[in-house]
Amino acid sequence: MPKVAIVGYGQTKFSKEDLKIESILLKATKNLFDSTSNLTQKDIDAVLVSTNNNSKYLSAILSEMIGIQPKISHSIESLCNSGTNSIVSAYSYIKSGLAEVVLISGAERYDSPGQILEWDNLRGEYKHPVFWASIFSKSYKKKYDVTDEDLAFVPVKNHKHSKNNPYAFSQKNISIEDVLNSKKLTDDLRLLDCSRPCTGGSSVLLASEKYCKQFTDCPIWITGIGQKTTFASFTKNQTFHNMESTKQAAKSAFNMAKRCQNDIDVMEIHDAFSVCEPMALDSIGFSNQGEGIKMIKESYSSESSKINPRGGLIGSGHPLGATGISQTIEITQQLQSKANKRQVDKANIGLIHNMAAAATSSTVLVLEN
Amino acid sequence: MPKVAIVGYGQTKFSKEDLKIESILLKATKNLFDSTSNLTQKDIDAVLVSTNNNSKYLSAILSEMIGIQPKISHSIESLCNSGTNSIVSAYSYIKSGLAEVVLISGAERYDSPGQILEWDNLRGEYKHPVFWASIFSKSYKKKYDVTDEDLAFVPVKNHKHSKNNPYAFSQKNISIEDVLNSKKLTDDLRLLDCSRPCTGGSSVLLASEKYCKQFTDCPIWITGIGQKTTFASFTKNQTFHNMESTKQAAKSAFNMAKRCQNDIDVMEIHDAFSVCEPMALDSIGFSNQGEGIKMIKESYSSESSKINPRGGLIGSGHPLGATGISQTIEITQQLQSKANKRQVDKANIGLIHNMAAAATSSTVLVLEN
Repeated sequence: MPKVAIVGYGQTKFSKEDLKIESILLKATKNLFDSTSNLTQKDIDAVLVSTNNNSKYLSAILSEMIGIQPKISHSIESLCNSGTNSIVSAYSYIKSGLAEVVLISGAERYDSPGQILEWDNLRGEYKHPVFWASIFSKSYKKKYDVTDEDLAFVPVKNHKHSKNNPYAFSQKNISIEDVLNSKKLTDDLRLLDCSRPCTGGSSVLLASEKYCKQFTDCPIWITGIGQKTTFASFTKNQTFHNMESTKQAAKSAFNMAKRCQNDIDVMEIHDAFSVCEPMALDSIGFSNQGEGIKMIKESYSSESSKINPRGGLIGSGHPLGATGISQTIEITQQLQSKANKRQVDKANIGLIHNMAAAATSSTVLVLEN
Repeated sequence: MPKVAIVGYGQTKFSKEDLKIESILLKATKNLFDSTSNLTQKDIDAVLVSTNNNSKYLSAILSEMIGIQPKISHSIESLCNSGTNSIVSAYSYIKSGLAEVVLISGAERYDSPGQILEWDNLRGEYKHPVFWASIFSKSYKKKYDVTDEDLAFVPVKNHKHSKNNPYAFSQKNISIEDVLNSKKLTDDLRLLDCSRPCTGGSSVLLASEKYCKQFTDCPIWITGIGQKTTFASFTKNQTFHNMESTKQAAKSAFNMAKRCQNDIDVMEIHDAFSVCEPMALDSIGFSNQGEGIKMIKESYSSESSKINPRGGLIGSGHPLGATGISQTIEITQQLQSKANKRQVDKANIGLIHNMAAAATSSTVLVLEN
């Protein structure tokens, strides 16, 4: 079966702009076309749209606007990991022989309907992600003797990183005190612990081994894929201090890639809230249980920015359907040595962690140059 | 690469019931589990939901309700051919080796938001499918000297067929006069020319060659797949008397299956409106241009019901996200000789035609026993 590579990408700046979903998709895709040599509309066999937006038929609309007449064309939704679900689907279309070149475009508006957990809400559970994040924080702090100050290190680091990302929503430094003094949303969560919903889009181009050299000298191969959905309701999680779906997805991805944690040079971790970054590091197996914060601090003090160099979701903003795609673009740029000020030394193997709905579902990807 | 087969199915009755989307998905999937021997939750690697409903995270919700913890899990939307898009995606997950067994569940409520063509509407075109159907009817009648009476034969035949389909919305015969005397929606379209939106669900199980014998003695193989999206806006169609996307999708499907029109023993044709059935037959190449009605009449008078034996969309009802899946179930049952009163003689090779938004997008599948 053909190997599958990422061969092009395009993004919009993440913002609070009041743009139509079609315009966001178009802008990100136009940016991809502008930056991908030798790409024409006729090269593209499939167009997938990743979004939580309620508009229908968006892949056909994007295709018409950009002048593509694809074979395969549809939208994909899985809340916050719609983006990596779309990438995995595109991978399977190419691997199966149904397509050679696939365009994926993810987009969201700041007021995305995917921010309300209707299912939990309907059943008398928790309507807004803030509530599960708060329970995760309380549980993680208590279990592992972690403090609010420790967790505040995550947004401080990620805002600092996002200043090197021209597409990021945040462009300013914040301090530990800023986080601790920001609006208290619950006993265990402050405003600056949260990633912010925003308007943004990101597009990637995937191609089979046969076609990838047409578009880039430096294809980035998808070598590991792991996905797991444990539940839909977050209270079904057996514990609130680790992420079972992430653990299983990471295991599958490492197995498929024949790689292990020590092989990873750079990583995108789904820091929807401060606590998610150390919890995910623990669950993927980068750190021992409860030692994620220690790893984040050590990695930072040694001047390496290998954890969320683009600023994560907290620094970059979180346009749901675009997030997993922007994470993938970051790792692609890192492995191509094209990450400018964000560039991590000797980045040859990277990992993406993208999750949904209190980590009831996770995707982990391994990419290699 | 492994062959892929349909190995199980379940449906709900199509109705005007006011059911939650989650309940419809659950009912259809429970019916699939009840009728598929040896199937357990642990067998399922991926759960795909096909719908235009605005609820998010439905594949995770369905998985939790039924007790599945899948690897791959997301929703797919492409208006009226969401169902066959989901089947093609499932095929690619299996073919690529990412999954061995995939559950697909399609569901819609009678008030689906997919019935309004927002894209055309926003641009001052036509809000409701009735308008494109009317233009198609006028154009087809004028071009090929076809009469309202000729077209009325389609709903008469399909309502008759649907009486043999226990899941169909319509259970009564109608006459040519009933069609012609039904409410006039436009100069070229009457109420009984239209398929009806309804509440309904349908689920199918796909498996790799290695696993299919666990679930059925009679797997039905997917041998041909063709898909094409030409535009999003129906006025971009160059003609209104044939379906370019259908023509191209059919050509691809026949090529892949190494079959031709004459090989097909039974077919599901997307008769969203009366005129769609002959137009699709022409575009697939079953009939010469303009002779679809002649083929429908000849096929009917010879007591064969090989065109839309379950009653098509007009007789069965049209719950958007479920339609392509129900069409696939019908052909599966026909090729398994399990279609009861609807059974077509010597049915070994079948075809499914499913389209969206004035045939700006089409899927054609070839199945074989």
